Amino acid sequence: MLKVVVIGSGNVAQHLITVFGKSSTIHLVQVYARNVDVLAHLVPKEKITDDFNTLEEADIYIISITDGSIPEVSALLPFSGKLVVHTSGSVALEQINNKNRRGVFYPLQTFSKNKAIDFKQVPLCLESEKEADYTILETLAQSISNSVYNINSQQRKSLHVAAVFVSNFANYMYSIGYDICEQNNVPFDILKPLIQETAEKVQTLSPKQAQTGPARRNDITTMEKHLAFLTDEKIKTIYTLLSQSIQNNNE
Amino acid sequence: MLKVVVIGSGNVAQHLITVFGKSSTIHLVQVYARNVDVLAHLVPKEKITDDFNTLEEADIYIISITDGSIPEVSALLPFSGKLVVHTSGSVALEQINNKNRRGVFYPLQTFSKNKAIDFKQVPLCLESEKEADYTILETLAQSISNSVYNINSQQRKSLHVAAVFVSNFANYMYSIGYDICEQNNVPFDILKPLIQETAEKVQTLSPKQAQTGPARRNDITTMEKHLAFLTDEKIKTIYTLLSQSIQNNNE
Repeated sequence: MLKVVVIGSGNVAQHLITVFGKSSTIHLVQVYARNVDVLAHLVPKEKITDDFNTLEEADIYIISITDGSIPEVSALLPFSGKLVVHTSGSVALEQINNKNRRGVFYPLQTFSKNKAIDFKQVPLCLESEKEADYTILETLAQSISNSVYNINSQQRKSLHVAAVFVSNFANYMYSIGYDICEQNNVPFDILKPLIQETAEKVQTLSPKQAQTGPARRNDITTMEKHLAFLTDEKIKTIYTLLSQSIQNNNE
Repeated sequence: MLKVVVIGSGNVAQHLITVFGKSSTIHLVQVYARNVDVLAHLVPKEKITDDFNTLEEADIYIISITDGSIPEVSALLPFSGKLVVHTSGSVALEQINNKNRRGVFYPLQTFSKNKAIDFKQVPLCLESEKEADYTILETLAQSISNSVYNINSQQRKSLHVAAVFVSNFANYMYSIGYDICEQNNVPFDILKPLIQETAEKVQTLSPKQAQTGPARRNDITTMEKHLAFLTDEKIKTIYTLLSQSIQNNNE
């Protein structure tokens, strides 16, 4: 059994705690939280600590906290030579204090507080300073997910940026669509199958192959109609910029 | 049995022909195509015509062709007083020649040539000039889909613009993500579950509730890191514009 300690009580930490708790090959030894009560619904009280000096022995310590606090918290750990990883997409491995063996355990998914997730489908991006530690991380990762990748810091950086586009910005496109519907008394529900099918398509086609719409087919008339329809200047600017960019991409 | 004639042989026309062909309450009487061969795999030869003067009697004539040709083709029909509808999201009902009873039968979905679709889930947006014709359109629509809406031309216009954002532009965000992955030797596959979950989330949450990411939480450090990472000026511009817009949306 791999012994794991999770440090943190946020969204990702809670999802990890849940999936580790269900695993038959992982022993979740302890969880650190500044506010012990936050995890009361997930972990027996005696397994939660708010004092670094009472941290127990484990094979892996997973720091799952806000990016900016990783250097400080990793320096506060009262031991050295252990395997300590963070779960961030945008923080370099080197930000972990070098008194311990360092690594990264980055689940690339969008986690909601109240929505369960099938962890088997969550891609886990692993990195370790020492080669031998990679095997430990891989064992841990494979016990909860079918989708495990060896990703170095530079690649992880690129994935994090790419994720902003495919998730945060795509969601913002949904948000603009939602507002347009609301302003015109149209139920947003009408667009939901389209949203799902658009995401579905790129599971098998490349996004460039899947691209449709007026900009893709250089349909100036329709684009002009759309711009005439839109009233918000900022939304018009977004429409124009993205359309031009798609048109350039056609070439 | 409702008797239907489909005029057109494009993507949407082919999907309609397929679903009508399977229905037990619709009689697909005939199909018009300029190039008869295009439909040879879908319809028996004797049911296809390339001559408007041989069009048969039907309850509904569905014109499913490029937007710009709708006025011309509807004027070429050698009869009057019949129910004639188009399937376009961006063309007004009035663009159909007024010698016939006019309507709209707009399936709001993205159709791929080689990907089957569950038509029961496709929202159909209906409009008719005469109230009595609405019932006919509704009967036709409900026989192939569970998702039927009465949508006027102004609402349809707004849906068409909204669809560009939630589908075409969202797909373009996937495309940018794909390019970033390729440039950094990362498999795009890693992002696929994230893309699906992002689309999944807004089936139950509003996009504004579902919004996450550095812009949403005003995380200037991460946004600066991302901009420093990106090299293409156009992609940087998109990143900045969308991030600012999300930040304004937070307020």
